[in-house]
Amino acid sequence: MSTRAAIVGIGLGPGDPDLMSVRARRALEGADRLAHFCKSGRRGNARAIADLVVGADPAREIAMAYPVTTEIAVEDPAYAQALAGFYEECVARLLAEVEAGRSVGVLCEGDPFFYGSWMHLWRRLKDRVPVETIPAITAMSGAWTAIEAPITWGDDVLTVVPGTLPGPELARHLRDTDAAVIMKLGRNWPKVRAALAEAGLEDRAVYVERATMAGERMMPVADMPEDHEAPYFSLVVVPGDGRRP
Amino acid sequence: MSTRAAIVGIGLGPGDPDLMSVRARRALEGADRLAHFCKSGRRGNARAIADLVVGADPAREIAMAYPVTTEIAVEDPAYAQALAGFYEECVARLLAEVEAGRSVGVLCEGDPFFYGSWMHLWRRLKDRVPVETIPAITAMSGAWTAIEAPITWGDDVLTVVPGTLPGPELARHLRDTDAAVIMKLGRNWPKVRAALAEAGLEDRAVYVERATMAGERMMPVADMPEDHEAPYFSLVVVPGDGRRP
Repeated sequence: MSTRAAIVGIGLGPGDPDLMSVRARRALEGADRLAHFCKSGRRGNARAIADLVVGADPAREIAMAYPVTTEIAVEDPAYAQALAGFYEECVARLLAEVEAGRSVGVLCEGDPFFYGSWMHLWRRLKDRVPVETIPAITAMSGAWTAIEAPITWGDDVLTVVPGTLPGPELARHLRDTDAAVIMKLGRNWPKVRAALAEAGLEDRAVYVERATMAGERMMPVADMPEDHEAPYFSLVVVPGDGRRP
Repeated sequence: MSTRAAIVGIGLGPGDPDLMSVRARRALEGADRLAHFCKSGRRGNARAIADLVVGADPAREIAMAYPVTTEIAVEDPAYAQALAGFYEECVARLLAEVEAGRSVGVLCEGDPFFYGSWMHLWRRLKDRVPVETIPAITAMSGAWTAIEAPITWGDDVLTVVPGTLPGPELARHLRDTDAAVIMKLGRNWPKVRAALAEAGLEDRAVYVERATMAGERMMPVADMPEDHEAPYFSLVVVPGDGRRP
């Protein structure tokens, strides 16, 4: 492994393997084991990105399958409890690898410290073994570049909001910013769309799905059919309109 | 050149050359000419980052020296006019290279479409020649990773504000967010510090200078001497405090 850390959170970027950093590539190629989060029985986004570089190798892979995703409401204390138990289990598996003398790379789509699941492992590991995090191009940077929409000009303020927020909060944040990115759409999409309309931004907003990956799609929000189903990893970009000498 | 675009805005990332994307490296090595913004007589940040990968080569370099930086107030119409003339001149120089059959890479620190000077060339070039933009790890991602401070947890809202905003506006945005990044400090620093205090965030804020580069410095804002001089490319990170199962 190219680093002295026993466990490395590898930021893989927005999807296109050429947009991975040189350091991330090296870590990907050098780690003894590669761990990835996924839904049970699926390969997961991060692993799909890594596959393009290092290929599938069951002997090297550690799948960490979420016990819950959408079955329990996020507000339910049972949700936090189930996730906490799951993260503890993951940590135990990774520490066992380190104790056996193996290095582990944890695959992270986007930038690991920006809404990443890696953060939940990192905070449990950091005082126990040497841990490193490799930053990456965020999904949102991939998106605003793919749609050729510079996001912030001059003194523009950028606000990033998760679509999981209540509608009125979304609208309030959207009204008080120059540029915006809305993450985590999925089933929040109808609510997000209504908040965009309420903030008067529907005409400036662009919907982006799978930016920089095969199957990339983008369309102005104003042109979207009412019944569009947005995947969780799609996002909305509202480019700023600041100073342009 | 590795791309069919005649002119490529190459995002170089936060500073550490290993954090450049594979595509950026390739463009950096392949372009016939490499153009960079700078202050007259200085090498500039972007060029300094590129130097670590491709070295200095006067025959290949095009220096674009700003006519004004801090001599004229941003609000003064003469400022916009001077900059507009400068960008037009840069565009003419780059187009002359393309007409002579040469490809040009424009060096951009951080992510080109995130407060980047490249945007001002890009909007003038995009309908005239084939242009490409290569996204990159932002300076802020480099910073929050360097200080090991995951920026957004759970449903945290992130607000990015330029330190150039008036103090009351800064404080208002800082009060209404979970996580924040303040860019463009420089001589705005005393005003930014006061806004952080007003928003009750001084104890959570971390100052970061030259993240991921030689000379990287970081310190809690609460520990900073009153007379600290912040360079323009330093920033403040206020990590979020959201859901942590």
